[in-house]
Amino acid sequence: MIYDTERLQKQIEFVIEIDKLKNIYRQTYVLGEERKENDSEHSWHIALMAFLLAEYSEKTIDVLKTMKMLLIHDIVEIDAGDTYCYDAEGYKTKAEREEKAAQRIFGLLPENQCSELYALWREFEDGSSDEAKFAAVLDRIQPLILNYTKNGISWKEHDVCKEQVAGRYSQTAEASEKLTQLAMNIINDAHEKGWLK
Amino acid sequence: MIYDTERLQKQIEFVIEIDKLKNIYRQTYVLGEERKENDSEHSWHIALMAFLLAEYSEKTIDVLKTMKMLLIHDIVEIDAGDTYCYDAEGYKTKAEREEKAAQRIFGLLPENQCSELYALWREFEDGSSDEAKFAAVLDRIQPLILNYTKNGISWKEHDVCKEQVAGRYSQTAEASEKLTQLAMNIINDAHEKGWLK
Repeated sequence: MIYDTERLQKQIEFVIEIDKLKNIYRQTYVLGEERKENDSEHSWHIALMAFLLAEYSEKTIDVLKTMKMLLIHDIVEIDAGDTYCYDAEGYKTKAEREEKAAQRIFGLLPENQCSELYALWREFEDGSSDEAKFAAVLDRIQPLILNYTKNGISWKEHDVCKEQVAGRYSQTAEASEKLTQLAMNIINDAHEKGWLK
Repeated sequence: MIYDTERLQKQIEFVIEIDKLKNIYRQTYVLGEERKENDSEHSWHIALMAFLLAEYSEKTIDVLKTMKMLLIHDIVEIDAGDTYCYDAEGYKTKAEREEKAAQRIFGLLPENQCSELYALWREFEDGSSDEAKFAAVLDRIQPLILNYTKNGISWKEHDVCKEQVAGRYSQTAEASEKLTQLAMNIINDAHEKGWLK
């Protein structure tokens, strides 16, 4: 017997299951390599940004809760796959696919932790708290920064236009004026450089 | 001008610099692929384990601090490289290489955040707090679980013996009796299966 309680067994089985997030690739590129970033790398990056940039949240947020949310927010993509943010077709079925995934994957955990993680994920998806709103800004600005630093590579590949990217920041100033301004500066500069149509 | 303050510029330049952690590969394999795991993936995994398994810490710990520590603990490897834990030769120069790296990389940040992150890293390296000691258990048990789940692949590649692995848990019971017991169960079973000499 490896595990001396069922609780510990469930927790470690969850830890093993979520290793699959390392194989879910996004549309953003890693800066130093000719490969795309995966969800676990993205989640690490934004969880770290959460405490680094928390001072730019308009509201006082619970940083621990925000970090937990960011570390787990993409786990549903193990089953549901990554839906590119400018894929209108994929977005039609996204909610349903992800809900099912959340139930299966968080359901591996002991009941109290399943409830906690499911609620955190739901809150993030619904943007129903100050933490969720600030987390959403980070989730959007990290690929923006990487893409911009890599001369707009993903935007060019997908023929993305300025209005599409800017549209993702139409309601983020409420969560962070400063980071929304940064996003707009980046978008305008990328457009001037011809990286965004 | 992309950045409207020098402070924000420094923070974002740090965010861009640490993207390199996605290119620092470890000796542990990702479960679903024939490739090794990188430091950012590992850091994501253990930061998540920190809040999931905090109940097994012998002492009451500050979970937020532990998570911050785990998210940044390997950043020095951007300059210093990953030193395999059973590489006696590499360990001779590890401390010096990593100290220099910490000063350069955390030095990119505004002064107060540079001090905070450097102190967190130093605390982890020295194991000088309850958070650092619990973080060290997670840092060790995550590759153990992955290796075990992948039939001991890295141990076989490096001809590692049971005593070497067990030696890494000789002082971890003080931080977590339960996770130390789990590690010993895994090590004993891996030895019986012939995955550890």
